[in-house]
Amino acid sequence: MEANRFSFEVIYRSKKSSARVGKIITPHGVIDTPNFVGVGTNGTIKALDNKTVHEIGLQLMFCNTYHLLVQPGLDVIAKGGGLHNFIGRDLPLITDSGGFQVFSLAYGGVNDELKSRGEKKRDGSVLKITEEGVSFRSYRDGSKILLTPESSVAAQKIFGADMIIPFDELPPYHMKKKELNKSLERTHRWEQRSLEAHLKCPNNQAMYGVVHGGIDVDLRKKSCEFVSRLPFDGYAIGGSVGKNLEEMISMLQFTLPMLTPEKPNHLLGIGDLRSLQYTIPLGIDTCDSSYPTKAARHGLVLTKKGPIKLLKAQYNTDFSPIDPECSCYTCQHYSLAYLHHLFKAKELSAYTLATIHNLHFMVELMQNYRELIYKDQI
Amino acid sequence: MEANRFSFEVIYRSKKSSARVGKIITPHGVIDTPNFVGVGTNGTIKALDNKTVHEIGLQLMFCNTYHLLVQPGLDVIAKGGGLHNFIGRDLPLITDSGGFQVFSLAYGGVNDELKSRGEKKRDGSVLKITEEGVSFRSYRDGSKILLTPESSVAAQKIFGADMIIPFDELPPYHMKKKELNKSLERTHRWEQRSLEAHLKCPNNQAMYGVVHGGIDVDLRKKSCEFVSRLPFDGYAIGGSVGKNLEEMISMLQFTLPMLTPEKPNHLLGIGDLRSLQYTIPLGIDTCDSSYPTKAARHGLVLTKKGPIKLLKAQYNTDFSPIDPECSCYTCQHYSLAYLHHLFKAKELSAYTLATIHNLHFMVELMQNYRELIYKDQI
Repeated sequence: MEANRFSFEVIYRSKKSSARVGKIITPHGVIDTPNFVGVGTNGTIKALDNKTVHEIGLQLMFCNTYHLLVQPGLDVIAKGGGLHNFIGRDLPLITDSGGFQVFSLAYGGVNDELKSRGEKKRDGSVLKITEEGVSFRSYRDGSKILLTPESSVAAQKIFGADMIIPFDELPPYHMKKKELNKSLERTHRWEQRSLEAHLKCPNNQAMYGVVHGGIDVDLRKKSCEFVSRLPFDGYAIGGSVGKNLEEMISMLQFTLPMLTPEKPNHLLGIGDLRSLQYTIPLGIDTCDSSYPTKAARHGLVLTKKGPIKLLKAQYNTDFSPIDPECSCYTCQHYSLAYLHHLFKAKELSAYTLATIHNLHFMVELMQNYRELIYKDQI
Repeated sequence: MEANRFSFEVIYRSKKSSARVGKIITPHGVIDTPNFVGVGTNGTIKALDNKTVHEIGLQLMFCNTYHLLVQPGLDVIAKGGGLHNFIGRDLPLITDSGGFQVFSLAYGGVNDELKSRGEKKRDGSVLKITEEGVSFRSYRDGSKILLTPESSVAAQKIFGADMIIPFDELPPYHMKKKELNKSLERTHRWEQRSLEAHLKCPNNQAMYGVVHGGIDVDLRKKSCEFVSRLPFDGYAIGGSVGKNLEEMISMLQFTLPMLTPEKPNHLLGIGDLRSLQYTIPLGIDTCDSSYPTKAARHGLVLTKKGPIKLLKAQYNTDFSPIDPECSCYTCQHYSLAYLHHLFKAKELSAYTLATIHNLHFMVELMQNYRELIYKDQI
């Protein structure tokens, strides 16, 4: 049987907002949208194995090219028959270009930078940024790695994720408009080169064009027009999305209507519960975030009534599950009191059980969002 | 249905050695012997949850009273309906008395002490050792905890493990015979008090008398005679078992024949693969050890052909499972190369997947030992 080609279909548009229900078909299965994409940087969701992730029903997982290039390296994944095969996941995968991580090395912490707290700085790992691309030293073995639009796409072709992302430059938040425009133009040249490299070796992968431009209306418009002109299969909204929720909402409000509505869009790196309440009505189809899994490892579990801090003393003798109505493995088998104890005792199973719950919560939350859209309630 | 009372039956005796196949019946199910007992100090095998441990088929789990008293505390487990209920395990459990850990605080590291490298020393946590018992400070909240034969048994009754152990003194390896004899006599008085406390509240728990005496023939004999005279349900071989395998074998050779053969015996804390080759032919029924799970977390996985160090460079591109013939979850789903990668990337799933394999290996290994005994091959 031939693998499915990539396609996207909008099934329903809310009468109340720009929210929409859709279906992305990929060679490794269907992604119902809107949906949450789990972050599996190194080819695994932290504290879970991929078969467990499969059972939880996470339809799309995000892996990071930069990390995978450094460890285990391209050669290993190539010999292992591609990323799906290597990591034991037969559901859809998406990889990024590596640009985000490389530039966060150049400009300091990504969060600082995106939230405008950072200053432009260089650490030792980034060696050179030119029109050709970026060279950096592997933090693992010190070897020199050159990342260009062509090499990033070549790596992502070998990884074989269902969706791939062109190589882009991540400009710092504080950049002035003139410099930001220069960075945007370079990103566009790099995206064009990435797309050309992608189209030279046609396969079943889809490439999402990345929209940049920070929070500047003109530059976002310029970027939307650029990516819309090219035969990308979808769009990823990247770059700085603002220093707070308000700036992000405002940016999405003017950006999303400028993208071809028949193609799927993805919001890079933003998927916390509060943001979702705003981004889904604006028409976001997918988004990735490490928030639910990171929160879990810090003992914060998500429920419909709000988050629960498992380490709080009140859960010491609370023998009910996290959520009596939750059907996840953790809630079916273990109590708050036991989870509290496992976190207190710093047992590794604590991190696994909390992550199972939070990922299951996200899967159900997105299912619920889709139902609300069908009912025109959002 | 009334819960099963504790009983033990020897089903087969090897014609080649003192090895025997038996069956321990407990209120929470059967333990086939000889068997390996997993260490779940805080009420969980490290890196696994208890339902997964159940699926792997581990028939008996060992929890530590000292740790459980400190965290979550007796009160929490009492309110939670006992240990089985609190931790979500409905297969057999065994708890120790807390003595071992308390005395290891007084005399330094347990391993150092048992292996004769230690010197008698006190740290701040042990406050007082008297005929009454031992008082110590909780490492968690600084509260004072008094552990006596009576309070240890009372705690173990509330925990409700299928098998419990009387309170004993752990003498340091270097003790001279005269002092060791004094310690032994105190242990015997404490064991007697423990047994009396146990028999005052008859329930379905079994109590194993602990045999002490270090590596001294006379003292081991004295201890065997003492515990054999009392209505214990089985025997645990404790105290110093020697500074190397040879000393332990020699000690077991003269100790085991002095115990009532109709009752089950347990070797405390020794269950590595090399030791098992010697202890099973000598007639050991059960033994606990953190070796297989600790080894797993260090990337050492067990196979019939010897242990594999997952971090070795040669496994970088080895896409076969740990053992092609192994039916464990890890071998069914993941390759050596992927496990190598997870360990390199320090992903938590590495520890879980390696632990699943090693625990499964131990379960199968013990099954195999039982078959060899039936065939008189050991």
